[in-house]
Amino acid sequence: MPRLMIMEATSTRALVCQLARQFYDLGWATGTGGGICIRVGEQVLVAPSGVQKERMTPEQMFTFSVDGSLLGSPADAALRPSECTSLFMAAIRLRDAGAVIHSHSIHAVVASLLFDREFVISELEMIKGIEGMSFHDRLVVPIIENTARECDLAASLEAAIAAYPRTHAVLVRRHGVYVWGRDWSHAKTQAECYDYLFRAAAEMRRLGIPTERST
Amino acid sequence: MPRLMIMEATSTRALVCQLARQFYDLGWATGTGGGICIRVGEQVLVAPSGVQKERMTPEQMFTFSVDGSLLGSPADAALRPSECTSLFMAAIRLRDAGAVIHSHSIHAVVASLLFDREFVISELEMIKGIEGMSFHDRLVVPIIENTARECDLAASLEAAIAAYPRTHAVLVRRHGVYVWGRDWSHAKTQAECYDYLFRAAAEMRRLGIPTERST
Amino acid sequence: MPRLMIMEATSTRALVCQLARQFYDLGWATGTGGGICIRVGEQVLVAPSGVQKERMTPEQMFTFSVDGSLLGSPADAALRPSECTSLFMAAIRLRDAGAVIHSHSIHAVVASLLFDREFVISELEMIKGIEGMSFHDRLVVPIIENTARECDLAASLEAAIAAYPRTHAVLVRRHGVYVWGRDWSHAKTQAECYDYLFRAAAEMRRLGIPTERST
Amino acid sequence: MPRLMIMEATSTRALVCQLARQFYDLGWATGTGGGICIRVGEQVLVAPSGVQKERMTPEQMFTFSVDGSLLGSPADAALRPSECTSLFMAAIRLRDAGAVIHSHSIHAVVASLLFDREFVISELEMIKGIEGMSFHDRLVVPIIENTARECDLAASLEAAIAAYPRTHAVLVRRHGVYVWGRDWSHAKTQAECYDYLFRAAAEMRRLGIPTERST
Repeated sequence: MPRLMIMEATSTRALVCQLARQFYDLGWATGTGGGICIRVGEQVLVAPSGVQKERMTPEQMFTFSVDGSLLGSPADAALRPSECTSLFMAAIRLRDAGAVIHSHSIHAVVASLLFDREFVISELEMIKGIEGMSFHDRLVVPIIENTARECDLAASLEAAIAAYPRTHAVLVRRHGVYVWGRDWSHAKTQAECYDYLFRAAAEMRRLGIPTERST
Repeated sequence: MPRLMIMEATSTRALVCQLARQFYDLGWATGTGGGICIRVGEQVLVAPSGVQKERMTPEQMFTFSVDGSLLGSPADAALRPSECTSLFMAAIRLRDAGAVIHSHSIHAVVASLLFDREFVISELEMIKGIEGMSFHDRLVVPIIENTARECDLAASLEAAIAAYPRTHAVLVRRHGVYVWGRDWSHAKTQAECYDYLFRAAAEMRRLGIPTERST
Repeated sequence: MPRLMIMEATSTRALVCQLARQFYDLGWATGTGGGICIRVGEQVLVAPSGVQKERMTPEQMFTFSVDGSLLGSPADAALRPSECTSLFMAAIRLRDAGAVIHSHSIHAVVASLLFDREFVISELEMIKGIEGMSFHDRLVVPIIENTARECDLAASLEAAIAAYPRTHAVLVRRHGVYVWGRDWSHAKTQAECYDYLFRAAAEMRRLGIPTERST
Repeated sequence: MPRLMIMEATSTRALVCQLARQFYDLGWATGTGGGICIRVGEQVLVAPSGVQKERMTPEQMFTFSVDGSLLGSPADAALRPSECTSLFMAAIRLRDAGAVIHSHSIHAVVASLLFDREFVISELEMIKGIEGMSFHDRLVVPIIENTARECDLAASLEAAIAAYPRTHAVLVRRHGVYVWGRDWSHAKTQAECYDYLFRAAAEMRRLGIPTERST
């Protein structure tokens, strides 16, 4: 492997830790929940499962190939890769994503309870933060049902990704949301916009304001 | 350009980054939204568009003259100036502002949904933080309708500034707020007071307390 | 003045700045509002008026004697002492307080709107954080009406302090709260407990739970 | 005592301070309330009572044996061990806990007011963060009544621990919650999951969503 790529991967490890700390502060990764993976070329850095997300260190990461085979493990043999790994890989494979964020934000969970099969909102500026969307567009996020085990979500996540070719996120009812983008910055921007819109929808419901303009 | 002014502009670049980080933490600049510009003499420092606002660096800034011509660009050719630039310049030109803050705070968005053409509140101590206002005054903030493109807001923002000569802020429905002041500190103080008042109004509505005292 | 006292006063200046930063983060001192004073022996350190509370520096403090005469001013001649100074001095003089905290917390403002002349709550563990109170006691905080100018509050604040000899706080309607204690730590502990109780009362009202147990 | 254990205990003291600071930021340890103890072998590190939890230092800790006798005190003779000590020891003794967290989170207090003798929730992903629980399980947390003095809670806490052999937490009505785990990380993970679930339950009630699925 060329030296430059090793260096890039090294700093990406630190970035994963910084972002995990930030997502913890946002309430997206409390109780060791939530997660992030970042792709560097043909490799994907995945955080370990069940660790305090705000205290992760660069050497705790796993490395996978884009087709899902394990390339590298941390020295600490007690660590296992995130249970989201197969879900992360689905978004990477099906959408050529450069990064995937999984959040347990309470705003995502509440949104999944306020809507039936699709979260729908229109006419909020932050909709423009989602790629391909403008202010007047109707933003639709599919909602899939949760399963007892995280890995059992993969089939329905893949089906939702296929059924909603314009979406960059899939809500998981009573669980959270998966958001992806072409790189970490794009994924983060979209994850923040979706989270804002989930929260805005609940605020609007509480105040009796419709979340979609009648036409 | 005299040496002193260069040095001042340099530290102002760092200040823009510090304030952007603070506004991110306040929820005003999530998803790369929101922004700030600061005027130094006849120059205006403007942040780039679409970057993570809590990670901006001093060398990423654009410099404009007060009349809106581009004086300096960052070395990174991928950066474009904030889409708010023409709106920032409107407040600088029409009100001789020294700094303009654009926030996507959810409190501003909710306030824009709870009121029709004007946000109105009276008898809260924080009203005194708005220049020229006292506790018993009726604080009025005009609300303009959002547009699909940010630059298309300029005409209605300018009209609102002209129609409300005492205001230091204009709400943009379903979008956020623009706030200005004679320098960065004055703009920040007023932006924090407005945000507090927007939030207080929603709390009062939820609890059935009128936002204006009947006379 | 003995050397030790000078050193103590010096570190107290840094402490005032640290606490002001913390109160800003708690939402008590936004928009340059709120404040704190700490007494060191016969001197009282008072923060300046109208500055960004999270950016204050030790050399910006004013020093007053306990009887209210100005002993020392910061080098920056543009600074004026906090408008709360006469109110701070009232609590110091009437209650021998070692520190006074003034907060604009939205929880205090909402509490002042939910209750008439007195905020009353009972049977919450955090009541025990207020000196002299136990879990089953009825905590009463007097509410005084706000005035157009902060200095005009002094007479009614003093009257409330006299009328409620057990209170360590006075709410100011539509404005905030003043809390004092025998030293900075005691004042801070009580200010945090009062703020928690103000917030709890609003939560209980929203959920239809009485804030006082019927006997 | 072997050298290694002394070193481990030393770094655990720093960890207690870091976690206390984190719990303060989460609103679990405001007004000097809340606390944490961590067991190292046969010793238990206990924080002092009535101190600012975000400013604790490693040398302020008390050391107890697992059977509750005091082994070491801080040099500052004004400090007393946390009033939670007997409650911490109950969880350590009865459940072989490696760490116990006591939180005054307003979400725990609100949950204790929304439910009668048991907090019950089902079908939220974060339930899986509680040891032995899966998504479809019914999570039950016993609620005991508060007492005027914290030490008087020990008998009913012990009774609840005995009556609910699967629980890792006990809610104290109008007060907060005790959570334990096999080590600090496990206790923290569970405390964050419980807190999230308490908050989610209140959100669901406010929005008219049942906290348990009808079967």
